[in-house]
Amino acid sequence: MPKVNFLPDNVTVDVSKDENLLRAAMQGEVHISATCGGVGTCGKCRVVLEKGELETTDTELLTDEEKKKGYRLACLCKVKSDAELRIPVEARRGERAVLDRLREAAAFGVMLSTEDIHALVDFKVDPLIQKVYVEVEKPSLSNNTDDLSRLEQTLKKKGYEDLSIDYDILVDLAEKLREGDFKITVSIMTLDNNHTIVRIDSSDTTKSNLALAFDIGTTTLYAEVIDLISGDILGKASDYNPQISFGEDVITRIVFSVKENGLKKLQKAVIGDFNKLAKEALEKSGRKIEEVSIITAAGNTTMAHLFLGISPKNIRQEPYIPTVTHWPAIKTSKVGLKSPKSSRTFVLPGRASYVGGDVTAGVLASGMYKSDKLTLYLDVGTNGEIVLGNKEWLMACSCSAGPAFEGGTIQHGCRATLGAIEQVRLNWEDHEPMILTIGQAKPIGICGSGLITALAELFLAKVINPRGKINLNLETKRTRKGKSGAEYVLVNKEDAKIDRDIVITEVDIDNLIRAKAAVYAGITTLLDNAGITIDDVEQAYIAGGFGNYLELDKAMLIGLFPETDGSKVKFLGNGSLLGARLAAISAKAHKELNDIARRMTYIELSVDPTFMDRYMAALFLPHTDVKLFPTVKKLMEGGG
Amino acid sequence: MPKVNFLPDNVTVDVSKDENLLRAAMQGEVHISATCGGVGTCGKCRVVLEKGELETTDTELLTDEEKKKGYRLACLCKVKSDAELRIPVEARRGERAVLDRLREAAAFGVMLSTEDIHALVDFKVDPLIQKVYVEVEKPSLSNNTDDLSRLEQTLKKKGYEDLSIDYDILVDLAEKLREGDFKITVSIMTLDNNHTIVRIDSSDTTKSNLALAFDIGTTTLYAEVIDLISGDILGKASDYNPQISFGEDVITRIVFSVKENGLKKLQKAVIGDFNKLAKEALEKSGRKIEEVSIITAAGNTTMAHLFLGISPKNIRQEPYIPTVTHWPAIKTSKVGLKSPKSSRTFVLPGRASYVGGDVTAGVLASGMYKSDKLTLYLDVGTNGEIVLGNKEWLMACSCSAGPAFEGGTIQHGCRATLGAIEQVRLNWEDHEPMILTIGQAKPIGICGSGLITALAELFLAKVINPRGKINLNLETKRTRKGKSGAEYVLVNKEDAKIDRDIVITEVDIDNLIRAKAAVYAGITTLLDNAGITIDDVEQAYIAGGFGNYLELDKAMLIGLFPETDGSKVKFLGNGSLLGARLAAISAKAHKELNDIARRMTYIELSVDPTFMDRYMAALFLPHTDVKLFPTVKKLMEGGG
Repeated sequence: MPKVNFLPDNVTVDVSKDENLLRAAMQGEVHISATCGGVGTCGKCRVVLEKGELETTDTELLTDEEKKKGYRLACLCKVKSDAELRIPVEARRGERAVLDRLREAAAFGVMLSTEDIHALVDFKVDPLIQKVYVEVEKPSLSNNTDDLSRLEQTLKKKGYEDLSIDYDILVDLAEKLREGDFKITVSIMTLDNNHTIVRIDSSDTTKSNLALAFDIGTTTLYAEVIDLISGDILGKASDYNPQISFGEDVITRIVFSVKENGLKKLQKAVIGDFNKLAKEALEKSGRKIEEVSIITAAGNTTMAHLFLGISPKNIRQEPYIPTVTHWPAIKTSKVGLKSPKSSRTFVLPGRASYVGGDVTAGVLASGMYKSDKLTLYLDVGTNGEIVLGNKEWLMACSCSAGPAFEGGTIQHGCRATLGAIEQVRLNWEDHEPMILTIGQAKPIGICGSGLITALAELFLAKVINPRGKINLNLETKRTRKGKSGAEYVLVNKEDAKIDRDIVITEVDIDNLIRAKAAVYAGITTLLDNAGITIDDVEQAYIAGGFGNYLELDKAMLIGLFPETDGSKVKFLGNGSLLGARLAAISAKAHKELNDIARRMTYIELSVDPTFMDRYMAALFLPHTDVKLFPTVKKLMEGGG
Repeated sequence: MPKVNFLPDNVTVDVSKDENLLRAAMQGEVHISATCGGVGTCGKCRVVLEKGELETTDTELLTDEEKKKGYRLACLCKVKSDAELRIPVEARRGERAVLDRLREAAAFGVMLSTEDIHALVDFKVDPLIQKVYVEVEKPSLSNNTDDLSRLEQTLKKKGYEDLSIDYDILVDLAEKLREGDFKITVSIMTLDNNHTIVRIDSSDTTKSNLALAFDIGTTTLYAEVIDLISGDILGKASDYNPQISFGEDVITRIVFSVKENGLKKLQKAVIGDFNKLAKEALEKSGRKIEEVSIITAAGNTTMAHLFLGISPKNIRQEPYIPTVTHWPAIKTSKVGLKSPKSSRTFVLPGRASYVGGDVTAGVLASGMYKSDKLTLYLDVGTNGEIVLGNKEWLMACSCSAGPAFEGGTIQHGCRATLGAIEQVRLNWEDHEPMILTIGQAKPIGICGSGLITALAELFLAKVINPRGKINLNLETKRTRKGKSGAEYVLVNKEDAKIDRDIVITEVDIDNLIRAKAAVYAGITTLLDNAGITIDDVEQAYIAGGFGNYLELDKAMLIGLFPETDGSKVKFLGNGSLLGARLAAISAKAHKELNDIARRMTYIELSVDPTFMDRYMAALFLPHTDVKLFPTVKKLMEGGG
């Protein structure tokens, strides 16, 4: 592992080979001004190579003379071996010792790899719909059984008894058998030990079996193409949930659904977009929709209802009753999704109106439901959903965070996509930013993880106060009065992909603070209900669509997550999508989802008398009671 | 029971009270000329009341003087008590003694009543889809389970576990529950111990549950509305199968089905007609299509395939393989039948390409499959289907009879409907006919039972010879050369409902003889395959759409059925429809149908070397080997 030493601070960072130099600096909390997101156009991230070698993309922003002197643009360099670099204009980040202490406490939010997650839960590839190749005995005058019975007899020898069959299959069974000269592939769905023949192919197609895993987020939709032979993810796509145009949160959408044709419009929007995402993900994977046999979909209870065109109206009214939480297998065509008529849609089971299949999915993916360790699971989406427990018990609650962490209600918020600002650092002296975008493309906006670090950095650099108000008296052009009030300019128009400055406004900050306060209040209310504190928690998993990773130290710094030993916290990524993927590849996972949903005890926060107080108290950075965040407290006091 | 004595022959007939006098005469083989079918317009059936009382409809065809003298028109009189009547113009029927002997041998084909049949098989009303009224506990904040789980918990207490649910039901489950203030009726389908919720009503509708039982005959379609509470038949309707316009027999229709859009056209025709028949039968019963939860349909294997839009093409080609013989439950909407989306269509299971659900149905209705007695079952339709066996074994075969016995391919053939000639007698001297129509309405044509008796009577009166050729040299205007050859005029235009004479042609007779020969050859081939003769058979059931009853003596006289002791023969009526009705009212019957279909050993007549010889030998009245019909032989020899 190459080591990079940054002078004059003498900070050494271990990086993986080919790591981008700007990213390495960010990892070491070494500030280098950078405002184009790492795309090589602002020319600010100048460093001088003192020792070692770097692979460098050429740039006209440096003169030949400068290049000879060792000047490089950090964002255009890849680390190949040990190297030493000097930051020419020194820009101290502040008290490194304090920052290090916070990072020690929080460690770095570890993003689990797909392999890590599959190891956590250990499901074999054994999907609900499987393909079986059979050679059926050909009919003759002495063996003139009908086609279906003949097929059933063959399948019986393979262990499939008491099969049912779709009418649609019957219609061309005879033709399929003869087309394939009685050598065919049968797709069989097995649910509760009942087998159903759902598809017949006139050849050996056992190597072609795909699933689509969908995450129906209130704000964001994700789709994955999964190979049901290998279990691999072949392609992905995501987009904002187009239902946003009918309302940003669950409640507004329920209200809309009750209007004339409202439910239909909402369903059409989400299904239409999933059709688009499936197409896109399939194109990326070079596969065809005809190969799809399973669609799994995870979403909160309201999203699941809207996805299936079932009115969610009673979810909103006391006593908050959903129509269904444990969904039957549904013929995909019924839902309006474009896919073979043989395919089935499995919506992941939930527990209650506000603890849906997305949470069950995350609990499954985390493996907490079969762990000895007392585990906290947090899914930060438009709703913050929190589950506490282990293999013995599970307790869940939900709080309305709003879409801020997914970029919703944020002026320049965006999804975690190419060009989204995902990491931000501020120079404590001149308040200049250092930003990195996903794919190091020109900045288009700020995604969830970028917003969390931006909020933390603005707070650390004292650009905002604990109430989130921007200090307009600083000696910087970065803060200013904008159209909708005070704002901080993260990227100037000339460095951005869009034709205006990318800013964070006081309104944005207010939304972020309210979101984090709701999540924090939810976590602490649930812990209190269980009679424990954060320190009793043996491991924690954070899920959400923030981006590629979460900087846990920043999450604790803003008071989103209680301050605790960071080594016990892991970042799962999109828990809902993960669970949908596991349910797609494994019948056992599907079954366990149902068990998880049944096991969870649901705590209704709206009737908990302490929740609102906790929420109000958390509307500060990091909290009105800063004693709860001792490391942050020290940092704020400037202590070492 | 009143006794009616006819003079001068001194024939006494026991009749039920209110019996029509003309029908009483026919029953006693007393000939009274009658050519208007019993409607009171031809004025020929004059009798003189000598003793007793008759209830008489007044007529202008008799003068007051005649009335005073005791003249009556037999067709306008009802028997109220013992009576004695004199036939004024004596018209002896011939050797009564011989006729009596034949009738003794054959007895009268006993038409079993619905009660008789239900007693035979003894099924309780316990249908596949049942309605259950439940009062579901209302939700509250402390009991906020979702609607579906709440309903499932309630149904569990009623003994229904592991329920599945239709997606269509989920869509408005919440609304239905609340509309009914949580007091609802749930329709549950139970198949192989799996329960599926197929419908929810927002009130107590347990008293409203209907089935439609369909017989998909090659020539005739029948529909019945059945009350699934009482098991009663509420309404009936029937019509010719409109597929006839695409071909009269199964093979022609299979050929048509392979043409472009052929299959679609055939299915559309039959489904369209069943929709019409269902509407008509429901109107008659004063009930609504919304009340229907079950449709059962019995038909031969090709008809079943066409009904469901499944290509029958391989049925025609060696080795004669149908796609399905054991049909799954099918959502009715898939078939195109107009009925609630909750309803299911159950096509009765068959055994092979040429022994279909219509035969299984008849075997069920006859109860032979659980009888100790060796039983012969014969269904005379467009195909003649024959089953032999008892509770230990069942053996079946099928032969192509053609549609003659249903009035098809017969110039004035018609269904057994109002105005159809169902009984015929001929005066042996002057060859004048005595006819009775269904409902004693003006004659419209001749139905199956009328054709069988007409053929027998023409033969007995020597109007035709054993080869079926009409003797044009008789001193009667009834026989003549018509457009399509020799013919016998059964009804003159002025007595008919239609605007031409109703005749039986030599071509018709030829068709009838070929039909009866096929059936006879089938019966004897099957008996021979089982190594027995007709006399070993302990009971026989004859089914078919002939009309309201079959005159068994006439069936034996023409050699349709082997001559045997008539007391062991019963006429079941439409066995296919009966079985469909039983499957509609009883889940057990439905299950037993599957067992019957599995148990039957199928004998393929087309590969039996003796069948064709037997058929050729039977192309005579009654048979080339008249020794097989000793009673008929004596009658033909004029012996006493």
